[in-house]
Amino acid sequence: MPEDQKIQNVVIIGAGNLATHLALALHHKGINVIQVLNRTRATGEKLARKVKAGYTADFRAADFKADLFILAVSDSAIFNVANSLCLKDKLLVHTSGSVEMEVLSEASSNIGVFYPLQTFSKNKRINFSNTPVCIEANTNNNEEKLLQLARLISKKVQLINSEQRKVLHMTAVFAGNFSSFMYTIAEDLLKKHDIPFSLLKPLIMQTAATAKHEDVFSRQTGPAVRGDTKIMDEHREMLAKHGVYMEIYDLISKSIIKHKTRNDEL
Amino acid sequence: MPEDQKIQNVVIIGAGNLATHLALALHHKGINVIQVLNRTRATGEKLARKVKAGYTADFRAADFKADLFILAVSDSAIFNVANSLCLKDKLLVHTSGSVEMEVLSEASSNIGVFYPLQTFSKNKRINFSNTPVCIEANTNNNEEKLLQLARLISKKVQLINSEQRKVLHMTAVFAGNFSSFMYTIAEDLLKKHDIPFSLLKPLIMQTAATAKHEDVFSRQTGPAVRGDTKIMDEHREMLAKHGVYMEIYDLISKSIIKHKTRNDEL
Repeated sequence: MPEDQKIQNVVIIGAGNLATHLALALHHKGINVIQVLNRTRATGEKLARKVKAGYTADFRAADFKADLFILAVSDSAIFNVANSLCLKDKLLVHTSGSVEMEVLSEASSNIGVFYPLQTFSKNKRINFSNTPVCIEANTNNNEEKLLQLARLISKKVQLINSEQRKVLHMTAVFAGNFSSFMYTIAEDLLKKHDIPFSLLKPLIMQTAATAKHEDVFSRQTGPAVRGDTKIMDEHREMLAKHGVYMEIYDLISKSIIKHKTRNDEL
Repeated sequence: MPEDQKIQNVVIIGAGNLATHLALALHHKGINVIQVLNRTRATGEKLARKVKAGYTADFRAADFKADLFILAVSDSAIFNVANSLCLKDKLLVHTSGSVEMEVLSEASSNIGVFYPLQTFSKNKRINFSNTPVCIEANTNNNEEKLLQLARLISKKVQLINSEQRKVLHMTAVFAGNFSSFMYTIAEDLLKKHDIPFSLLKPLIMQTAATAKHEDVFSRQTGPAVRGDTKIMDEHREMLAKHGVYMEIYDLISKSIIKHKTRNDEL
């Protein structure tokens, strides 16, 4: 790709966790974040200062010198914000896992998606080079530009279309959000018995590390996969006072047993 | 504690994952594993060689020079194996999270529990210094001996009675086994859509790392905690063909929403 086609100047729309982490990652790799566009002045200016960018609250004052406009706003705001930018043919991407690219098609003739698959929290710095970035674009040229930009900040860049991205986002709910809630249940139950949650942390990290391999289920341990009904009954008894946790215990145990049976039959 | 009361020589009964990891950890810290006792010769001799110990398959040939006998056998075998050892007053512990200490009371007058809370797999070496070891004993003197031994191999030693240990083990099912099964569901669904599971691995590790903090729920993300019914409906639609996964999606989402409501009301 010729030098003059490479993305060098970007505008970030939004100033939340994802906008901040992404703007910083691009800034550190020598991309000019020339403007932060955000309705709330305080957070917008704060991010702008961090990446030495201009700031505006006016969606019609987007800086047209940019090669790329990155929408890092909530899913439900993408359509309206995109259309209020008046970009015509400027390259515009959103950063959402669950919104199709086409939602941008009224806003510009050059569109794409730049979806970093990670959980971003406010105060925790993310190693972006290890964060998968999923790319989609409406033309080969736009795709090439976005791939090149993504590879600047991440070693894990993948082309993913809108349909695949929705599946990916849904599975991230299981692997991320739901596993996190399993920790919450454990913490909750331990608290009721005055047992320190910290005792489970090495187990949690070790379990996550097993997911580095393919076929996670081959490493499944515990009473359900062993078919240890005695222990499962004891656990159910302990959970009797905790209705919904017992339901979860039963349903997941049942599903593990079913999965094992299915695998054994294969 | 006087030097001559410290545990120096141990017999390991069993040669599975836990027996192997524990025997190696003790051996590396200068404790003499003088004998491995295991019904299956091949695995027993293999472990014995690793820790320069003797080997026997005969449960009545336990080496009485040992200060401690460690039962690392399956939960259901503990009672019978313990009673076949004829130990009288020799210090005997089991290593199970879900079996009360008293199961050993017919086998010896000096008993305890030495429970390392971690998931042990065959080929993966464990950093034992980071593995919590939960101790229980029937006398102060036995407790002191076991604490001292545990502190040799682990920085995280905790007194935990039988009732607490059962709760701890049950919560480990949620935090370990069930979170692992959430990865399996994700892997399974991605495979059906030809999307590489490796894309989720950084998210999984990052999510596990949030459990280093207290109050994991304050870091909960995803559509359920946001109350994003539009996305949840889309996910349910994608899961329509996967009955039990949809049930799990619904139940955990419902539970997250309930948890949030309860927290908001506090």
